[in-house]
Amino acid sequence: MAYLEPGQKKTQSVQAKQKLYSHGNVITVVIVCLWFFTGETACVFPWFPFCSSSDVRRRHGQTPPGPSQRGGGPQHRSHGRPHCRAEVTFQAEAVKKTDVIFVAVFREHYSTLCDLADVLAGKILVDVSNNTEINHHKESNAEYLASLFPACTVVKGFNVISAWTLQSGARDGNKQVLICSNNQEAKRIVAEIAQVMGFTPVDMGCMSSACEIENIPLRLLPAWKIPIFLALGLFLFFFTYNLVRQVIHPYIRGQKKFYKIPIEVVNTTLPCVAYIMLSLVYLPGVLAACSQLYYGTKYRRFPDWLDQWLRHRKQIGLLSFFCAALHAVYSLCLPMRRSHRYQLIETAVKQAMEKKTDVWVEEEVWRMEIYISVGIIALGLLSLLAITSLPSIANSLNWREFSFVQSTLGFIALLISTLHTLTYGWSRAFDENQYKFYLPPTYTLTLLVPCTVILARVIFSLPCIQQRLLRIRRGWEKGRYVKFVLPSATGEYSSGETSSNV
Amino acid sequence: MAYLEPGQKKTQSVQAKQKLYSHGNVITVVIVCLWFFTGETACVFPWFPFCSSSDVRRRHGQTPPGPSQRGGGPQHRSHGRPHCRAEVTFQAEAVKKTDVIFVAVFREHYSTLCDLADVLAGKILVDVSNNTEINHHKESNAEYLASLFPACTVVKGFNVISAWTLQSGARDGNKQVLICSNNQEAKRIVAEIAQVMGFTPVDMGCMSSACEIENIPLRLLPAWKIPIFLALGLFLFFFTYNLVRQVIHPYIRGQKKFYKIPIEVVNTTLPCVAYIMLSLVYLPGVLAACSQLYYGTKYRRFPDWLDQWLRHRKQIGLLSFFCAALHAVYSLCLPMRRSHRYQLIETAVKQAMEKKTDVWVEEEVWRMEIYISVGIIALGLLSLLAITSLPSIANSLNWREFSFVQSTLGFIALLISTLHTLTYGWSRAFDENQYKFYLPPTYTLTLLVPCTVILARVIFSLPCIQQRLLRIRRGWEKGRYVKFVLPSATGEYSSGETSSNV
Amino acid sequence: MAYLEPGQKKTQSVQAKQKLYSHGNVITVVIVCLWFFTGETACVFPWFPFCSSSDVRRRHGQTPPGPSQRGGGPQHRSHGRPHCRAEVTFQAEAVKKTDVIFVAVFREHYSTLCDLADVLAGKILVDVSNNTEINHHKESNAEYLASLFPACTVVKGFNVISAWTLQSGARDGNKQVLICSNNQEAKRIVAEIAQVMGFTPVDMGCMSSACEIENIPLRLLPAWKIPIFLALGLFLFFFTYNLVRQVIHPYIRGQKKFYKIPIEVVNTTLPCVAYIMLSLVYLPGVLAACSQLYYGTKYRRFPDWLDQWLRHRKQIGLLSFFCAALHAVYSLCLPMRRSHRYQLIETAVKQAMEKKTDVWVEEEVWRMEIYISVGIIALGLLSLLAITSLPSIANSLNWREFSFVQSTLGFIALLISTLHTLTYGWSRAFDENQYKFYLPPTYTLTLLVPCTVILARVIFSLPCIQQRLLRIRRGWEKGRYVKFVLPSATGEYSSGETSSNV
Repeated sequence: MAYLEPGQKKTQSVQAKQKLYSHGNVITVVIVCLWFFTGETACVFPWFPFCSSSDVRRRHGQTPPGPSQRGGGPQHRSHGRPHCRAEVTFQAEAVKKTDVIFVAVFREHYSTLCDLADVLAGKILVDVSNNTEINHHKESNAEYLASLFPACTVVKGFNVISAWTLQSGARDGNKQVLICSNNQEAKRIVAEIAQVMGFTPVDMGCMSSACEIENIPLRLLPAWKIPIFLALGLFLFFFTYNLVRQVIHPYIRGQKKFYKIPIEVVNTTLPCVAYIMLSLVYLPGVLAACSQLYYGTKYRRFPDWLDQWLRHRKQIGLLSFFCAALHAVYSLCLPMRRSHRYQLIETAVKQAMEKKTDVWVEEEVWRMEIYISVGIIALGLLSLLAITSLPSIANSLNWREFSFVQSTLGFIALLISTLHTLTYGWSRAFDENQYKFYLPPTYTLTLLVPCTVILARVIFSLPCIQQRLLRIRRGWEKGRYVKFVLPSATGEYSSGETSSNV
Repeated sequence: MAYLEPGQKKTQSVQAKQKLYSHGNVITVVIVCLWFFTGETACVFPWFPFCSSSDVRRRHGQTPPGPSQRGGGPQHRSHGRPHCRAEVTFQAEAVKKTDVIFVAVFREHYSTLCDLADVLAGKILVDVSNNTEINHHKESNAEYLASLFPACTVVKGFNVISAWTLQSGARDGNKQVLICSNNQEAKRIVAEIAQVMGFTPVDMGCMSSACEIENIPLRLLPAWKIPIFLALGLFLFFFTYNLVRQVIHPYIRGQKKFYKIPIEVVNTTLPCVAYIMLSLVYLPGVLAACSQLYYGTKYRRFPDWLDQWLRHRKQIGLLSFFCAALHAVYSLCLPMRRSHRYQLIETAVKQAMEKKTDVWVEEEVWRMEIYISVGIIALGLLSLLAITSLPSIANSLNWREFSFVQSTLGFIALLISTLHTLTYGWSRAFDENQYKFYLPPTYTLTLLVPCTVILARVIFSLPCIQQRLLRIRRGWEKGRYVKFVLPSATGEYSSGETSSNV
Repeated sequence: MAYLEPGQKKTQSVQAKQKLYSHGNVITVVIVCLWFFTGETACVFPWFPFCSSSDVRRRHGQTPPGPSQRGGGPQHRSHGRPHCRAEVTFQAEAVKKTDVIFVAVFREHYSTLCDLADVLAGKILVDVSNNTEINHHKESNAEYLASLFPACTVVKGFNVISAWTLQSGARDGNKQVLICSNNQEAKRIVAEIAQVMGFTPVDMGCMSSACEIENIPLRLLPAWKIPIFLALGLFLFFFTYNLVRQVIHPYIRGQKKFYKIPIEVVNTTLPCVAYIMLSLVYLPGVLAACSQLYYGTKYRRFPDWLDQWLRHRKQIGLLSFFCAALHAVYSLCLPMRRSHRYQLIETAVKQAMEKKTDVWVEEEVWRMEIYISVGIIALGLLSLLAITSLPSIANSLNWREFSFVQSTLGFIALLISTLHTLTYGWSRAFDENQYKFYLPPTYTLTLLVPCTVILARVIFSLPCIQQRLLRIRRGWEKGRYVKFVLPSATGEYSSGETSSNV
């Protein structure tokens, strides 16, 4: 983040001016940070609105890591703009010219501005700084700045916007500029600047939330942590379990099957993870329904763990799809392998030497044909779910469509995966040779959670329970109408009445 | 939808206040619905802008179905906000305090507000209600509300926004708040509220279109219905056709091939569907061009069926890609199957017993190598088409880029798929053993439509026709200059003139 | 583009009016272009805000090419709107009624407006025209129009918006309306219209940049040209190289292996391209770091070629992923092929005749199991990279998350691909039989660039260098503090100071 910032500040103000100007707005923005480049002087960009920031970036050779520069069509804004001529003045003069000042300075150097305190008095200071780690200091940078300059109004903002979004102009997503300050007027002015720059200012209230705002750019996929650890945990468990059944057990019996580890063991592990994760997506919904039924109301807050779980379903679902897709690729690779080839040839040779032409086992054939085709269908459905959870698509659906795809199609996908597992297992659960070290076949373990979910869903779909659930979700509450009975109100009516707030 | 609404209403007003406040706006929003929770009293949220809606949601434990919560980075807005203290007053008082009232009440309970009629007189009522089914009532809820409160101005709006969009703040897509009312001023005020909340208000005109607005959230992928039925129809037809050729026919000849149904028959059906659907994407364009050539103008409206067809091409194309992808996966699964394995071994054994080492058939090898590689290329192109039809990508392309990918690349994909089909068919169309029950091989059937499209495209690309088509599309009309001849106008000039509106 | 324009103009103004009206705005917009349809008269759309543009489109039967109509949920705006009754007046009258006029006329027909010059005097003309090729005329259309009507203020804008975006309302992405004019006030008014229509006006400065704006809609994926040619070049080189090794060489030895060309040769070529392209994504970052280390500053502008390269990494990366995916599909197809089948049977038969049952080669088995599984993992990582580079997802990540995925994960993907290549190569680099015509095995060639990148990355991660690099990227400059020493400044402090602008 750090090495990104100068660009951020500069481009910010450049575009700010550019856009402000383009709207005949007369707020001057001075980039104090530039002062440090040139010792005593500060840089005021001139009023040429076509002064772009791309050249600034080039001059500084900042580069985003990795293949993807942000966003779609930045060429619009990064082409053939003349360089902007920066007018360099003394910092004090610069400050005089302006009302809003972007303080693009590290926290540890706020002090260097202190000798300007008198000139700055009464102006609006926008603190755009970021920390290098979460909750680095007790008080947020903005609050610290405010304590240094009691005569100024400090506004926190713009720190969540990356330099690249700024350079290529605000595009879809991530256009929110979180702003907080104790002074409403100052907040309004900065919000206006943000809006003029094409961002959507979001009021985060007063200074107290500055700390939160400063932590946002330091977050690293917080929503993904738990699901990923969950997936890894499941993977490790099933991997060892399969290792024991497929490699260790034969080894004790004297067969070396270690070559199975890289692909076959992994490929029996992945589907278990995918399958259980998928069921974990629908389990919390079931639990929520249970609690709603039990307490007879929906206005009772869920326990936090359930709330967390509900909010992580998207990530769990996507990881489940990822594992399923990998499982598909692994399975498709099976016939490519040498081992497959050798085994094939060996059986063929054996058959030939025994002069046995008939190797056809109808049951085996049917089993495999069925579970493969069922598996493909399940994968197809899951891919639809994954696609509709892309932001741009999810947002183009209305609520009913979205819940149809995610809830209905998703549950059908769960059903079909269960079918896939059962047909894969076939009758092996009842064949004792499968119980190596008395360990049941892996697929039997995986069936537990999904079957619970499916069973619960079936029960909930019984008319009586469904009715009750629906009423609860429409706002009806158990024993509600006892609390107050309107003169003209029967229990039914008032229950209708309560349901009417919904 | 229903169980979603209370959150929707509440969060709406909460955020409305929050945002309004943050912009120094002084409109009070009262949530009448809350009144029902607390009997006689109504709830007025206090003016703390950092009062978020996430806690409201938690309190009510509403949960979106399925893995995907809407949108990308909601953590911005759902973190660490203090609970908002709701000040609870009597409803009448609450109403006095405000000008705009969000009536978050079911249609059947509007009546319960009647005793407030006098207090409400002259205020703006925003009807946010939704029905449970399309065109449930004769007149729209908003119109019904207006009839109940003749003294108030009723505005319909905000019903298309889901509670989740509201909670996580308006993000890309689906930001439109459709508003309609007979009173321009009221409309303006509500539109302003929407804008302040970060949505883009869309004027839908006067009350008469309220019914339309109320139906929108009840729609379930209307654009997909026809294409999906089309795909299913094609699938069923080709499935039965292939069933007859691949299973029934051998069965009559005394061979049991039923195991082929789950995979092989499906896998010969899917490509047919995909291929024909792809050609159906480009057929309407050809028809449109024909009609334009025939009538010598582009200003003649197309018949509705063609118009419908043109507007469903995206969906048809995506379904075609979906089938093609499934076809690819199915094909890749073929060598995994037991049946494949057994057949392989059996042939090997036979060969061994006959001491035949040479099984190589050069022609077969070539045929398969070619049609597989061609098929992969076609799939690659189709996947590019599918990706560019993602909203976020489609919108980052300019018109020329978009039409290049969709029209040019798409047509090339059609050409290559045709090649794939032909190389797959090879010479089998002329081998009478292939005509089981006198039925021609499936692939011959599929070739009809695509070849027509390709042929038409080739003809249109002939200079003479292309020129004419281009002029028509630039606005030129047959015999146009006859209608009015400007003094200084030659036919050429006026044709140029007409073409100039283009 | 051309045949698109009338719709564009019309819908533009229709929506403009519709939206303007909905905001009580009183600017009249006249579509002069319609005049040409009806000879002497001009068309003024009436004030019915629910007058949609979809019917206009239908009337003109414009159709976007190919399967994908732009955008996600256009049904919102394209349903059940009554036709708008267009009031047809004389052009002069129409012009009198309005202040802002959208001149939807081809450049070559501007002259036809000259007789209106006196009526138009003092009005704002919005030039929405596009050319058919880049830099077609010396001066831009807007400038030409301005020269024709010196009495009017000309504003260039709206030409980058496609008719489809206009019809289905402005949605995510591509909402920018680039505006330029020499008159600030006129610019402000048009910008307001754009904003009312739901677009984000972008000030492009004065008339001089009109030419640039007019060229934008004519661009055809400029950012992709270089990467695609790069990929093609690499493909051709490796294709011929593999052709020589796999086909020509055996042919000279007297074996006909031509059947290998369509799949096997392509499938050994694609991974090379993918692998080298992937390394080329990370090479420029390394070079940039080198130059920063060498010059001891980040404020020195990079040479243009490096700058270009840095800006094309996204495209290079996506092409690399595309090749990798194709490589995966090709590989999965290998066992499907007849040739594979025949070879299998032949070996089996041979073995049978020699009564050899043991064909198992442990090393071969291990090699293949490992490099397949490693390959799958690499593909999985690359797909994650590709997904996060979708605009809508990239924009939902904060900078740290984005750089983590693209830089860290991407580099891990590079490492794993290297492992994949090495395990695939195994010991063959040292087996002289592999050096056909003294040509080394292909995979050895591909290793060069990636290994350089990895090595450089390892070196940069050494504490001493890493520290220096970090300080430079935080703004520190070599020998900087020599330039000015503040009284209270030690070298360390001022270096800190300089780093503080970062």
